Amino acid sequence: MAGDGTDQRALQYEQTLMYGRYTQELGVYAKEEAARIREEAAYRRLVTERSRSLDLLEYDKSRCAKCRICTVHCQKFLISRVGEDWIFLILLGLVMALVSWVMDFCIALCLQAQKWMYGGLDSNVVLQYLAWVTYPVVLISFSAGFTHIVAPQAAGSGIPEMKTILRGVVLKEYLTLKTFVAKVIGLTCALGSGMPLGKEGPFVHIASLCAALLSKFMSLFGGIYENESRNIEMLAAACAVGVGCCFAAPIGGVLFSIEVTSTFFAVRNYWRGFFAATFSAFIFRVLAVWNRDEETITALFKTRFRLDFPFDLQELPAFAVIGIASGFGGALFVYLNRLIVQFIRKQKAINKFLMKKRLLYPALVTLLISTLTFPPGFGQFMAGQLTQKESLVTLLDNRTWAKQGIAEEFEYIGHAAAWKHPQANVFITLVIFIVMKFWMSALATTIPVPCGAFMPVFVIGAAFGRLVGESMAAWFPEGIHSDGVVYSIVPGGYAVVGAAALSGAVTHTVSTAVIVFELTGQISHILPIMIAVILANAVAQSLQPSIYDSIIRIKKLPYLPELGWGHHEKYNIRVEDIMVRDVRYITLNCTYRDLHDVLLTERLKTLALVESTESMILLGSIERAQLQALLSQQLGRPRRLEYLRQRAQNERKHSSIVSTPSSEEGNHKASHEVRFQISTEESSFSPTRSVSPKPLKPALKRHSVVERGTEIPSNQDSGIALKSLFCAHPEAAAVEDPDVDDDMTMREIAEWEELQLDEQVNFNNCKIDPAPFQLVERTSLHKTHTIFSLLGLDHAYVTSIGRLIGVVSLRELRKAIEGSVTVKGVKVRPPLASFRDSGTSSSDAEVTELHKLWNRHTNLTLPQDHQPSDSDEKSQ
Amino acid sequence: MAGDGTDQRALQYEQTLMYGRYTQELGVYAKEEAARIREEAAYRRLVTERSRSLDLLEYDKSRCAKCRICTVHCQKFLISRVGEDWIFLILLGLVMALVSWVMDFCIALCLQAQKWMYGGLDSNVVLQYLAWVTYPVVLISFSAGFTHIVAPQAAGSGIPEMKTILRGVVLKEYLTLKTFVAKVIGLTCALGSGMPLGKEGPFVHIASLCAALLSKFMSLFGGIYENESRNIEMLAAACAVGVGCCFAAPIGGVLFSIEVTSTFFAVRNYWRGFFAATFSAFIFRVLAVWNRDEETITALFKTRFRLDFPFDLQELPAFAVIGIASGFGGALFVYLNRLIVQFIRKQKAINKFLMKKRLLYPALVTLLISTLTFPPGFGQFMAGQLTQKESLVTLLDNRTWAKQGIAEEFEYIGHAAAWKHPQANVFITLVIFIVMKFWMSALATTIPVPCGAFMPVFVIGAAFGRLVGESMAAWFPEGIHSDGVVYSIVPGGYAVVGAAALSGAVTHTVSTAVIVFELTGQISHILPIMIAVILANAVAQSLQPSIYDSIIRIKKLPYLPELGWGHHEKYNIRVEDIMVRDVRYITLNCTYRDLHDVLLTERLKTLALVESTESMILLGSIERAQLQALLSQQLGRPRRLEYLRQRAQNERKHSSIVSTPSSEEGNHKASHEVRFQISTEESSFSPTRSVSPKPLKPALKRHSVVERGTEIPSNQDSGIALKSLFCAHPEAAAVEDPDVDDDMTMREIAEWEELQLDEQVNFNNCKIDPAPFQLVERTSLHKTHTIFSLLGLDHAYVTSIGRLIGVVSLRELRKAIEGSVTVKGVKVRPPLASFRDSGTSSSDAEVTELHKLWNRHTNLTLPQDHQPSDSDEKSQ
Repeated sequence: MAGDGTDQRALQYEQTLMYGRYTQELGVYAKEEAARIREEAAYRRLVTERSRSLDLLEYDKSRCAKCRICTVHCQKFLISRVGEDWIFLILLGLVMALVSWVMDFCIALCLQAQKWMYGGLDSNVVLQYLAWVTYPVVLISFSAGFTHIVAPQAAGSGIPEMKTILRGVVLKEYLTLKTFVAKVIGLTCALGSGMPLGKEGPFVHIASLCAALLSKFMSLFGGIYENESRNIEMLAAACAVGVGCCFAAPIGGVLFSIEVTSTFFAVRNYWRGFFAATFSAFIFRVLAVWNRDEETITALFKTRFRLDFPFDLQELPAFAVIGIASGFGGALFVYLNRLIVQFIRKQKAINKFLMKKRLLYPALVTLLISTLTFPPGFGQFMAGQLTQKESLVTLLDNRTWAKQGIAEEFEYIGHAAAWKHPQANVFITLVIFIVMKFWMSALATTIPVPCGAFMPVFVIGAAFGRLVGESMAAWFPEGIHSDGVVYSIVPGGYAVVGAAALSGAVTHTVSTAVIVFELTGQISHILPIMIAVILANAVAQSLQPSIYDSIIRIKKLPYLPELGWGHHEKYNIRVEDIMVRDVRYITLNCTYRDLHDVLLTERLKTLALVESTESMILLGSIERAQLQALLSQQLGRPRRLEYLRQRAQNERKHSSIVSTPSSEEGNHKASHEVRFQISTEESSFSPTRSVSPKPLKPALKRHSVVERGTEIPSNQDSGIALKSLFCAHPEAAAVEDPDVDDDMTMREIAEWEELQLDEQVNFNNCKIDPAPFQLVERTSLHKTHTIFSLLGLDHAYVTSIGRLIGVVSLRELRKAIEGSVTVKGVKVRPPLASFRDSGTSSSDAEVTELHKLWNRHTNLTLPQDHQPSDSDEKSQ
Repeated sequence: MAGDGTDQRALQYEQTLMYGRYTQELGVYAKEEAARIREEAAYRRLVTERSRSLDLLEYDKSRCAKCRICTVHCQKFLISRVGEDWIFLILLGLVMALVSWVMDFCIALCLQAQKWMYGGLDSNVVLQYLAWVTYPVVLISFSAGFTHIVAPQAAGSGIPEMKTILRGVVLKEYLTLKTFVAKVIGLTCALGSGMPLGKEGPFVHIASLCAALLSKFMSLFGGIYENESRNIEMLAAACAVGVGCCFAAPIGGVLFSIEVTSTFFAVRNYWRGFFAATFSAFIFRVLAVWNRDEETITALFKTRFRLDFPFDLQELPAFAVIGIASGFGGALFVYLNRLIVQFIRKQKAINKFLMKKRLLYPALVTLLISTLTFPPGFGQFMAGQLTQKESLVTLLDNRTWAKQGIAEEFEYIGHAAAWKHPQANVFITLVIFIVMKFWMSALATTIPVPCGAFMPVFVIGAAFGRLVGESMAAWFPEGIHSDGVVYSIVPGGYAVVGAAALSGAVTHTVSTAVIVFELTGQISHILPIMIAVILANAVAQSLQPSIYDSIIRIKKLPYLPELGWGHHEKYNIRVEDIMVRDVRYITLNCTYRDLHDVLLTERLKTLALVESTESMILLGSIERAQLQALLSQQLGRPRRLEYLRQRAQNERKHSSIVSTPSSEEGNHKASHEVRFQISTEESSFSPTRSVSPKPLKPALKRHSVVERGTEIPSNQDSGIALKSLFCAHPEAAAVEDPDVDDDMTMREIAEWEELQLDEQVNFNNCKIDPAPFQLVERTSLHKTHTIFSLLGLDHAYVTSIGRLIGVVSLRELRKAIEGSVTVKGVKVRPPLASFRDSGTSSSDAEVTELHKLWNRHTNLTLPQDHQPSDSDEKSQ
């Protein structure tokens, strides 16, 4: 089961015990992939168009030409329509609704099977226990194993990855059919086990997968499915569909997906989300009607609170208390979840052992949790026999459980009976339920299976709300209202408020309120819910990142922190305060030697190209790989052979010019006719598309051009790779040029290379980004953040009247935002930062790792003479 | 009443009959104003800080220093807290809730007074009629007159202006105390008259006014209320508050305000809107409870539909029909509204007459509408006696009016009786109501009083929905459901659907659905409502712009069209396809003569500054006004006098150097010591801050420097202004320099000027925008639009490796988006464009005016050698 047969090369995804982590600079890979895909698609389109017009011509010649032309036109029309957004969105909605419904059906079957087994064996407690425990252990182990083998990326929620993808990074492995299969099957098994896991996060991922696959499928019909920005628009809609069809909550789905995945939201995409999510939710509920589960389309967890007097004004403080407590609870949950991951990562011995026996950890966790929930055992004190769905339904019940202390009058119908215990009253069961489920959920969500944390948190929140509600009902048995009519307190309303508040606190969203309205089908508690959700958010956001951001950090996905609440000191920081002033650059008239030196001493991902050292006018930026290609082209064997051939020719002609060809002519020829050859040494660029924009001449084909370098980890010292690349030893040459003999000695080669290095660089065939993003010194931090997050930038140059004076990368921006930069003598710290620091102080390991990531990241992007300041240490 | 005593200079706001229009390029004015305000604020802060530290020093000397220092610290703490966002938002919410509640109270009083008068005079129909008609005429006339005198900008909705402001343009007059007073009082009177007018749009404006004033007020305590981007964030939150406290709909308010005002939405502002809107809605409803209007906090128009079976699946087609019909209806409403405005603008004679008697038009319209609604007259067929609120309550009633054709069994309780007519059945009254109210609302919203169109449209939609619902109920008296239990059809549900759909269609928003849920307190019809709203939007958006965009065009506010639904051809257009290639520019080493020529031949607002004609490297952009200042500085009288003085000095010294001073030194002196003087001729720039960044030397004050040019219409030929400006005739000089005599003859002056013109321009003291936004040739239209709308750009230069190769302005972008640009031989047209063209073909006047505006706009911004293509004519 622990076989590493999967193809992890491409993404450099390192599988760890719980969450994987990335070791490659994702952006580089992603951009190249995107460019490749675009080119391929453009080519395919060209071919399609050509063949279509050919078809037309043929038809013209045949007999019933008119009729056929008409058919072709119709076909064309249909195909063009297929490319329309709304057809895509309808299909997406339909597919996702079906997936959601089928999965729900299977999960229900699984849970029923467990109940049936457990019920059938009630004569023997030991057998019963074995059945109760084995079933989820098997399912979870299967899910973990299956996921690991088919697509390890499918484990976990998926929202953090989607957030990263919508930020502009392409995680290609995340949107493949394999991952789709792994996610759907893994999630079904995981939820079928009855563990406290959710389906919302994975559904966002599944919907995105669905959209990506559908997009691929539809691009077979032509259309415009190649555009990158359009794909991102579609993925944003897909996220909405995911939440929408999971909870039958179209509006809440759209809002939730916006809140958790976007930094800037284009209002023009709004309708897409609404359209697709509504359609999806509609089909999802219609399926339930057709299956005779429901009489008509209603909410998923319909409540029946009274409408005329939903709550009293004087109950509002209680709701506010729920909100604030949920805020602390939510932060604690995120912290606990991270703590568990870090604890296990830290213990090297345990970690090593568990990594070998991959399925042990899931099995152990499942065993522990299911043992504790065993109904005849400890489970009787925490309604262990109820599934998540049943618990939620009972918690949202509009009747009061504890009207007179321990409720004698109230008959616990159906599932509600599980909350009643002969020895313990309802309050005790509720408290035990909350405490146990809290850590169980935090633990369970670390299992490497496809799972989310939203639903478990939602249930815990509902239980907490119910607890407060029941207490209030016990405290004011006649209700608070004093004007004659008795309006008793509705604990179910409190449960709704608690659910929205706690899930809002954990995810840092306000739209859980809307989800709750749509889930329950009632909006009468709107004001209490809004108040509680906002308070919970205020508390949670000042204590901890959201669960998704927390996972982003654990997984080391590239991120840019948000400008938080009320950080208005930020508005007074300018780019000039945070930029790195000592930028390394190359000039337009530099020699290959300069290039060589810069490449050897620096490890930048992109280099600025300026006009000259004096003027410093920024002309553009060039990728490191491009420069490496230029250099190896200049020093490569083919060019040397060409030089030899030319020298031989000249000698044959007896002309007097035996010296090196003029650099002008030589360069020109080289760039047109010569391709370079790379050895089997490691090099970190794929030279295929970059070097020859013009078609290769047939003569060139005789050279065995190695089109793609072998895969290499990018954190290898590329300086070494570079050297081995440039020193083209004659014995490495695989093919001989028929015209000339490579009879140069090593010394001659070295001399020749020295000569070549003194030539001026010819940038003609070099891919230059002509407009790298530029800022001005006076640009505010606020605006910089806006531009970075909107355009998905990684770094931006700071110019003054065209002159390059500095560079700002994500790193500087992040440091400035996280408050560890000193500006104008004042240490800018976000409110409650000290609190947050102490909160994460025990998680040094993670922070250090984070810093390593960032340092490496910056090493690749930026000049490193700017030493990491002591602020780094302080922010830990 | 027609007095023009208001100060309209600043904004160049031209008051027309219905909507005003702008004649000045708003951006220029706005930016200068913003800069001025910022400077002032910075100065004030400096003063405050200094005085505070002085205070501290004094306290230190006194006896109980510790205690006082503590007090000062507390004070400081409090003041710093006052600057926090959430305090601002709470205050804003509180104030707006109070305003909303007080206004509602006053409006209710006004309406009651009318009813009371009408009821008291029921003995005499003529008297009754007079009372019924006079009352609204007086109120509307007062409202129109008051608005006109106090602040003409207060008329109309306010949402179009807020959209423009949030797009980055500062309409300063729009956010003053005067406007606030005019809007609040005018709106109260207008709504109190009982005309079919709404309060939503004006409330958005009032909330924004409130935020602006509050911001000003709080900046007295120090804090960070000067930042422009922060102000925009606050205004966005204010818009949400406006809708939120108007309908007690916090979520819907936030979403609606996002949809109607934003193109890109920063998710980090999300919480602001929610927080403020929730607080505001909460206070608004609490006030109702305290006033004993309500028992507890509930929805504004609470419905009581059954929860268990809200609707049958088979009713969905009917809901879809409502959606589609509403889409057409909404488009028709927008079209009708624009048609009325244009009709009256076209009829020059009527227009002139009405412009003179400003109050005649409002009075006539009111007279017409109130005559038709007179209850004993025609009003009896259209429930004329009901106010808007009463109509809505009855329309949303959960009982069926027409159970068996004309409902005998149903007793019409309370207001519902108005819908029953002895001769006509309910269907006829509903149809008459819909038809009459439709044109009445379209007409009434053109009255120049503060008013919105949302609520009237909402009521019409509800009536339409009710009509369909009642028809369905009559058609299926036993309900559609076939499974034993009879679930009769609920026409009230249809009314809710209709209301959401029609208002969604008119405003092009989806969030009306959420507003409806919050207004009615029920969410059970979520799917029908979402389906209807989406369909209505789909239809309406392909036929007409939204009512707000329509008003933006009528008012000629600067706008950038949206990328519409499914315009994916857009993705394949590149900047190189639409850019203007022949850009006029100035070089770094140009002479004043070049500058003079460029300024005379071109009418650009900003000019590109390149390094040289050969390199074409873009260094930045300079505003026209800056260049004019440079030129007049070089040729102005002060500099000539300086020259004369120096010559005299040199002669006195008997030195041999009598020729012109070296250009280097001369320029240097000129720029530091000399300010130019402008004649009373027209010129279109305000040179105050632009010329001397350094403080004026005392000696300079002897010159009577005219600080501000007189106000001029900007579409005057500025070429003439320029000439008269540069030819500084000696007789125009008001003050004589004591040192030298201006004894140069006209010919000498001309010669001297010729000499000066040949000097190189010194850009040292010139304000250069060092980083005008740059695009690359390959940037897609989609991305260009994104960047333009996000950063509020007006034009962007297209560069290639630093070389300027073209320019794209809003105009090109607009043309490309609106589909009248020819790319790659294919005419790109948005879907249904032909339909839309024919729809607006009768509105040539507006389109022509629009084009004029755009042409003028571009004349100011762009090189004009690029002739307006024939596509302009075609798009009309």
